[in-house]
Amino acid sequence: MRINGKKYTTIWYEAKTDSIKIINQTLLPHNIKIEKMSSLVDIIDAIKSMKVRGAPLIGCTGAFGVYLAARQFKEKTDLHKACKELIESRPTAVNLEWAVNRVLNKLEGVDVNKLEETALSEAIEIANEDISFCKKIGEHGYNVFKEIKKNKQALNILTHCNAGWLATVDWGTATAPIYYCNDNNINLHVWVDETRPRLQGAFLTSFELNNENIDNTIISDNTGGFLMQKNKVDVCITGADRVMKNGDVINKIGTYEKALAAYENHIPFYVAIPSSSIDWSKNVEDIEIEQRSSLELSCITGIANNKIQETYIYPQESKALNIAFDVTPSKFITGIITEHGVFNANEKSLGILENKLS
Amino acid sequence: MRINGKKYTTIWYEAKTDSIKIINQTLLPHNIKIEKMSSLVDIIDAIKSMKVRGAPLIGCTGAFGVYLAARQFKEKTDLHKACKELIESRPTAVNLEWAVNRVLNKLEGVDVNKLEETALSEAIEIANEDISFCKKIGEHGYNVFKEIKKNKQALNILTHCNAGWLATVDWGTATAPIYYCNDNNINLHVWVDETRPRLQGAFLTSFELNNENIDNTIISDNTGGFLMQKNKVDVCITGADRVMKNGDVINKIGTYEKALAAYENHIPFYVAIPSSSIDWSKNVEDIEIEQRSSLELSCITGIANNKIQETYIYPQESKALNIAFDVTPSKFITGIITEHGVFNANEKSLGILENKLS
Repeated sequence: MRINGKKYTTIWYEAKTDSIKIINQTLLPHNIKIEKMSSLVDIIDAIKSMKVRGAPLIGCTGAFGVYLAARQFKEKTDLHKACKELIESRPTAVNLEWAVNRVLNKLEGVDVNKLEETALSEAIEIANEDISFCKKIGEHGYNVFKEIKKNKQALNILTHCNAGWLATVDWGTATAPIYYCNDNNINLHVWVDETRPRLQGAFLTSFELNNENIDNTIISDNTGGFLMQKNKVDVCITGADRVMKNGDVINKIGTYEKALAAYENHIPFYVAIPSSSIDWSKNVEDIEIEQRSSLELSCITGIANNKIQETYIYPQESKALNIAFDVTPSKFITGIITEHGVFNANEKSLGILENKLS
Repeated sequence: MRINGKKYTTIWYEAKTDSIKIINQTLLPHNIKIEKMSSLVDIIDAIKSMKVRGAPLIGCTGAFGVYLAARQFKEKTDLHKACKELIESRPTAVNLEWAVNRVLNKLEGVDVNKLEETALSEAIEIANEDISFCKKIGEHGYNVFKEIKKNKQALNILTHCNAGWLATVDWGTATAPIYYCNDNNINLHVWVDETRPRLQGAFLTSFELNNENIDNTIISDNTGGFLMQKNKVDVCITGADRVMKNGDVINKIGTYEKALAAYENHIPFYVAIPSSSIDWSKNVEDIEIEQRSSLELSCITGIANNKIQETYIYPQESKALNIAFDVTPSKFITGIITEHGVFNANEKSLGILENKLS
């Protein structure tokens, strides 16, 4: 997708420097900075500090991380140890573990001289798949949205956080149907939850949509329920960091309250993910819900006096708690949109998808 | 209540300067500044710019505004015209209209030489009543909370926005039971919704509670539902800008989503108000829900480089919508705590209160 009219992906391999390039997303929307990742340490730091974020992109970044690790660690034990640390750099997204293990599995039995090139080629493959899967999500979502749009002047979509192209390699998950609709002349408007604490809705989703000339309005996270009561929302769509096999959705904190409000007001609530975001083995109780630094709440980056500055907004003495994700029980989810089509949020329907994948 | 150990009320008449004094709440928690109101224009500006806010305090400020207007306008028509503008300075809170009209009614038939002193004495009476009513709310709320606390080590209370002493003259509405419990050795902890856009939870409620040494934790507005799912919230309590006679509650945007989450998780949700916040005549559809400047969303005041600064946090091109209030249907409200006791959120129960008042 575009930034200032120029096409980008969020991550790519640059042959001439033999390095991985990313957009440092912590600086958006105020500053567009491309950064070079030359080692596993760079990758882990980029994931932890959220220079890259969004479950699918974290996965792809992890895959490229295995490539950089394979350059450094020639011993299998060392490589696996390094990759364990990589997987643990963010605990809630399932894609990271999935992508890292996929590359590691590819390396099994490969000649030691071929490790690097095999890892790189698999990481590129994962990134390319991510793009095509997201586009597929867009196509399936378009069919859903087209139905909801019927007889309406414009489709009003509400989204939470950023499951946009910046959370993937391109297209996004929740935004893919929006971009697909836009490309196919479906008139739409997006309500963008600003999404505290890190404001990824305002900082990233609105920024993305502006750059694609898609009509959007930022609202405080408190506002969605009110707009739903007033019939100003036709459909909600979010991404997810992990979808359980029973259809429970782990996503950015606040998703649960939005889904509750949608359910109460009879508004469909969709979750768009690549199938790699589905956890086929664990139960929701086994998932660690990441708690992050309270500074993410109390310190906000913005423009003051024409400079990018960090501003401290809470009383100095105040404690704050920063829970990053919540769990939306499957009963509040209308459907899960994947690259293979739309499934109900329950074990039976997702089981059909599991069979397709195996 | 106390700021840095010193007792304050939010508004008072100062005889030696014959003026009204207020705490400029737009500067809290970063700066504690007392301001002098010498004319109706000062009062209207203070209400519009939210130097004073909170339905009960807006009402009291309006009452003192009539006194300052009565000093300026000796003709009844002029006075009433000025007071109409005063009432319209914030449309959603019912207390403003109530308090202004109460003082104006008191002036009916009063000798022109006695207008000023009558208005002042009635305004002071309203302020004193507010204090005693809030304390009564505290007592009734204490009885409710004591029951919920049974067999729990500490009572976990969630509140949204600021219905603290800073929203009234003293004690607060939603915080009155908290202060009352604290005075009576009930062990408690308060989850404070930061309450975007203006962050009055973080800026005011947490500040208040810190100054009274009450354990509290600020959370993003997205977090309450998660904590409720995890049994970390025993009871919710908020104030209201207006309660309809059928029990519907108009309060700070986001109250509705919090009440929905509480209902879903079987957690009691109380609304604490003086009876002057009840609208006995209108229907909810007739109430104007105030829409405020989107700058309140995109521009945040905080400390940067040791200075109080305004920071712009959204992409420049982005639109934002700032709805200030929402409507929580009565079915989600467990009870309305007033100075006259606790009532159910329905026409029958509130009718008993109406009879008491008349």
